[in-house]
Amino acid sequence: MTKLTHLDDQGRVSMVDVSRKAVTSRRALAEGYVRMTKDTLASLHAGENPKGSVEITAELAGIMGAKRTADLIPLCHPLPLSKVKVRIISDPDLPGLRVTSETKTEGVTGVEMEALTAVSVACLTIYDMLKAVDKAMVIGGIRLLEKDGGKSGAWRADY
Amino acid sequence: MTKLTHLDDQGRVSMVDVSRKAVTSRRALAEGYVRMTKDTLASLHAGENPKGSVEITAELAGIMGAKRTADLIPLCHPLPLSKVKVRIISDPDLPGLRVTSETKTEGVTGVEMEALTAVSVACLTIYDMLKAVDKAMVIGGIRLLEKDGGKSGAWRADY
Amino acid sequence: MTKLTHLDDQGRVSMVDVSRKAVTSRRALAEGYVRMTKDTLASLHAGENPKGSVEITAELAGIMGAKRTADLIPLCHPLPLSKVKVRIISDPDLPGLRVTSETKTEGVTGVEMEALTAVSVACLTIYDMLKAVDKAMVIGGIRLLEKDGGKSGAWRADY
Amino acid sequence: MTKLTHLDDQGRVSMVDVSRKAVTSRRALAEGYVRMTKDTLASLHAGENPKGSVEITAELAGIMGAKRTADLIPLCHPLPLSKVKVRIISDPDLPGLRVTSETKTEGVTGVEMEALTAVSVACLTIYDMLKAVDKAMVIGGIRLLEKDGGKSGAWRADY
Amino acid sequence: MTKLTHLDDQGRVSMVDVSRKAVTSRRALAEGYVRMTKDTLASLHAGENPKGSVEITAELAGIMGAKRTADLIPLCHPLPLSKVKVRIISDPDLPGLRVTSETKTEGVTGVEMEALTAVSVACLTIYDMLKAVDKAMVIGGIRLLEKDGGKSGAWRADY
Amino acid sequence: MTKLTHLDDQGRVSMVDVSRKAVTSRRALAEGYVRMTKDTLASLHAGENPKGSVEITAELAGIMGAKRTADLIPLCHPLPLSKVKVRIISDPDLPGLRVTSETKTEGVTGVEMEALTAVSVACLTIYDMLKAVDKAMVIGGIRLLEKDGGKSGAWRADY
Repeated sequence: MTKLTHLDDQGRVSMVDVSRKAVTSRRALAEGYVRMTKDTLASLHAGENPKGSVEITAELAGIMGAKRTADLIPLCHPLPLSKVKVRIISDPDLPGLRVTSETKTEGVTGVEMEALTAVSVACLTIYDMLKAVDKAMVIGGIRLLEKDGGKSGAWRADY
Repeated sequence: MTKLTHLDDQGRVSMVDVSRKAVTSRRALAEGYVRMTKDTLASLHAGENPKGSVEITAELAGIMGAKRTADLIPLCHPLPLSKVKVRIISDPDLPGLRVTSETKTEGVTGVEMEALTAVSVACLTIYDMLKAVDKAMVIGGIRLLEKDGGKSGAWRADY
Repeated sequence: MTKLTHLDDQGRVSMVDVSRKAVTSRRALAEGYVRMTKDTLASLHAGENPKGSVEITAELAGIMGAKRTADLIPLCHPLPLSKVKVRIISDPDLPGLRVTSETKTEGVTGVEMEALTAVSVACLTIYDMLKAVDKAMVIGGIRLLEKDGGKSGAWRADY
Repeated sequence: MTKLTHLDDQGRVSMVDVSRKAVTSRRALAEGYVRMTKDTLASLHAGENPKGSVEITAELAGIMGAKRTADLIPLCHPLPLSKVKVRIISDPDLPGLRVTSETKTEGVTGVEMEALTAVSVACLTIYDMLKAVDKAMVIGGIRLLEKDGGKSGAWRADY
Repeated sequence: MTKLTHLDDQGRVSMVDVSRKAVTSRRALAEGYVRMTKDTLASLHAGENPKGSVEITAELAGIMGAKRTADLIPLCHPLPLSKVKVRIISDPDLPGLRVTSETKTEGVTGVEMEALTAVSVACLTIYDMLKAVDKAMVIGGIRLLEKDGGKSGAWRADY
Repeated sequence: MTKLTHLDDQGRVSMVDVSRKAVTSRRALAEGYVRMTKDTLASLHAGENPKGSVEITAELAGIMGAKRTADLIPLCHPLPLSKVKVRIISDPDLPGLRVTSETKTEGVTGVEMEALTAVSVACLTIYDMLKAVDKAMVIGGIRLLEKDGGKSGAWRADY
């Protein structure tokens, strides 16, 4: 049976020892969305958001959020991120905005948490910028899509 | 029509001017969840998590995350939080863990973003502590439930 | 003679005591620039920067930098910022980009340092985004333009 | 033609992928100044600043600021700094204080932004400590002097 | 019997609700020390530390540390500090350095944790700067000396 | 005679140059305590702290504090921590709580400061959670126990 890695037998919590793990190229891909009304989404395509500033702001917030992952998640190891990319696209069928992030490192632990944090912070930023229009938006579907590198190797979500 | 408050006509972004807004008691309530397999949830009730350390860790991470909101969300005003409470309960029907947060301030802007950030960081922490067992967990349903105080007054989500 | 407010007679350093100062509306306006070659500036108007993303990114960095002022400047008091606005315009005569910032608070100390920090971080961000094209850019002219509120009242730079 | 490295064809912003860049010894040297009146500069040499505490405080702020570079500059990669040195000297001909910084890393990206951030934060700290005496000080001349290491190799400013 | 204020009956942790507490002038005084050998202390009075830079550096670190209290201590409320003063004196009888700090706020919670954090970070900084000479130094005696303001009023340590 | 590594002949302060130091496995062990009355310690074993939440909270705060070491200690190099473990046990003879921490890195500088910072922040968190019961608690005995790795090799405290 797989163990909860951060807990000992008495339920005491630790940051996992990764000092003997090998440095490998690691990569993660994550996604999430902000679901909103059609009207709210439409306001993003109207004159109010001429340069896509909402999307650019949220993408930047996601990138900066990824760099703060070890500050936010108590047991995460600090990581030298070698790439963070966040992209937001409009999906009229949701309706809402879809967020994806890709993170990379050359390191001893994976970058899944960094990718998921990037998506979460981007979604929160979208909510913040649209909340005067619509407070009922829902953030969801935040999950890992792909993971490469490390001892456990590649992992893919069931699409 | 409601305007996007952070953008001007050219799509340039600013932190909204709240210097003339009155200081009032403000409160927000938010929720979210981490959906996982029955087996993963079961591992939390087994001997591996005897003190509920996963939940306590995630609740603390949510509280500390709420205090970092203005660092993470580019256009959020810094706020003197007067209360942050995060609670996590197990829901076998989800299956998974449900997170709620309550935030309060005596200030000029609302604490919705702080409540939503607390939930998001708590969910990410749960994912981090269980990801060795289950990488397919999904974070979702992050939304505002209640908001009180301020010029726009009370708001309730449709339950 | 005016005294250096942070030092005592032995040259020991302290954060100034502002506990008896009145809460008033305070505002500051600051400016600065990044001087570059005509070619570098031209690259910003070409197809490479179609949405003005360089300017939007630097404006956001300036806003977020203003919120970090008390973290960066050792003797600055933490302040509840009620407004931060950063604007960047192209000046072909410089040649380069000009940055202005406006900050506001309802508080006991001024927001001059927040305005100057916003300008500085925005200039550094511009440098970062253009440094692959031009490493010889110079950041300069960072100064306070206007200050309002507080015991010492209004102050204006000689234009 | 040199490309803006952080932007794609649609003007969307990313942190550059450095996962395939080699780890090399990198170094940067930067400078800047705070220009002030002769009287303000004189106050630094009088009994008010007996231990040079203004300079020591600003040098420390610059060192600590260099460590915060990736927090402040949205698209900067986090770097393991192996050296930061900031020095401030008095220049009666300016008149004012001149700041230089040297930064080093063993890493995959350069330390130019860290050197420039160190200078900027040191200049802001000088302004903060002298602003009760002189609000008209100007921060300027912030530029890269030297850069070594990395694929593009050595670079020197025209002195 | 006095209750543990951050815990509920099930041992779940929260930030205490202070939304109904009155804003009053609050002040705290704390102390601590770094005990070292006579030789280590002597090295501070010799030519190696001509300007008292070790003490100035540690005093600044204490001030900046006080401003980070709510980031470090999970259940601390963020506070608008109105004064932080840290002083370090040499005590040949210890032998070592003694640290005191004074903090003030106009707020709804006390500044005891800020004063104790200032002392702790100053002591750690002293250790860091002297550890090449002496690794056996001991940090101790960190305690609250005085507390004023708030509902519970003044408190004094038994000297 | 051993030199103060962070100071030059004029007493100016720098972060030490570690660019030529070898990457080795490094480890540090530190300890400290919070001394309190028997009654205060007893309250931790009574119904008020059923899950040991005070200890779990302080252990997490210590782990997160270790990750902030380079932010807090001015001349510390940022380090990729590969392990942080903090443990708190009750000692009726003190009376009080004893804190130990273990830190590891694969890097060019030691992790002593990270271990000592973890202990300090854990002690401060214990104080914070018990201060409503007992303000006279004393934090002390913070010292390095063991150090391994690096050029200077192993070091052990005299027990």
